[in-house]
Amino acid sequence: MAKRTFPLSRVYTLLESGPVVLLTTARKGRANVMPMSWHTMLDFEPPMVGCVVSNRNHTFGLLKATGQCVIGIPTVDLAVQVVGCGNTSGRTVDKFHTFALTPMPASRVKAPLVVECYVNLECKVIDAKLATRYNFFILEVLKAWIDPTKKNPRTLHHCGKGAFMVAGKTIKLPSKMR
Amino acid sequence: MAKRTFPLSRVYTLLESGPVVLLTTARKGRANVMPMSWHTMLDFEPPMVGCVVSNRNHTFGLLKATGQCVIGIPTVDLAVQVVGCGNTSGRTVDKFHTFALTPMPASRVKAPLVVECYVNLECKVIDAKLATRYNFFILEVLKAWIDPTKKNPRTLHHCGKGAFMVAGKTIKLPSKMR
Repeated sequence: MAKRTFPLSRVYTLLESGPVVLLTTARKGRANVMPMSWHTMLDFEPPMVGCVVSNRNHTFGLLKATGQCVIGIPTVDLAVQVVGCGNTSGRTVDKFHTFALTPMPASRVKAPLVVECYVNLECKVIDAKLATRYNFFILEVLKAWIDPTKKNPRTLHHCGKGAFMVAGKTIKLPSKMR
Repeated sequence: MAKRTFPLSRVYTLLESGPVVLLTTARKGRANVMPMSWHTMLDFEPPMVGCVVSNRNHTFGLLKATGQCVIGIPTVDLAVQVVGCGNTSGRTVDKFHTFALTPMPASRVKAPLVVECYVNLECKVIDAKLATRYNFFILEVLKAWIDPTKKNPRTLHHCGKGAFMVAGKTIKLPSKMR
């Protein structure tokens, strides 16, 4: 990953279209990664993201305990690895190793970046009050990285049971919306 | 809209890929509609959806007061109307009339369906505790409708400032994920 810092004020443009992301966590020197589709922007700047991590997932405990994670955004060439990460559990499998994903130290959190992802967002949990009832975590994005060499990244958008819509063309309309 | 009921247990397949939606509300016999991209599934069944409606939007007050709304999912042929709804406010404009959108009575809520949308989800607010701090509402989907005549619906996915990614092809991988 050739990485360049990306302005926090524009992080929403990367997430609001609904890509599948890879959520990484780390504890006691061991990193884990899971795919996630249930996330939404909550605010522009500082960028805040709400996301659902089921309490059945290994990541739930790691996220609660460490309060840190990285959101990586994969493109279609990583589809097999993304599904692989969803079909296995970090309780029993070293997913980075198994699926040939490369962890890379982040700058602000202990969870690793994913080298193969075109975007990586370093995040901390700022509100876990809804984790008990809704498995819902509120994150603040502390640092954003983008790979400037990947033009027109074709993100994956989960439609259930391993079906993914692949990002198509982009259209532009005169808009006052941010 | 030729509408057919859609199983609640599969509503997540319509929303988790991140489409722009049209959120309708109604109060005192007057309906309003706004585009929204900041939403996420929160649970499968009954389907629960979390969404951000800014307190600067006219819809915020309507949603708080009535506790009801409809989530319509538009396709690319409605892009101009979607942006139009985002560029105007229901405080001063009758958006259904201005943008030639057709309201249709829903079965469980007073907010209208949008005839031109290929999906309409009738929702009630079940938790507005985070509305004050995060503009975040938790909805339960009570009834789901789909237009069976619209095959391969090409949804819109907002990327900021009127840029929309249009849904591309769908790929399928062997997955244990729901």
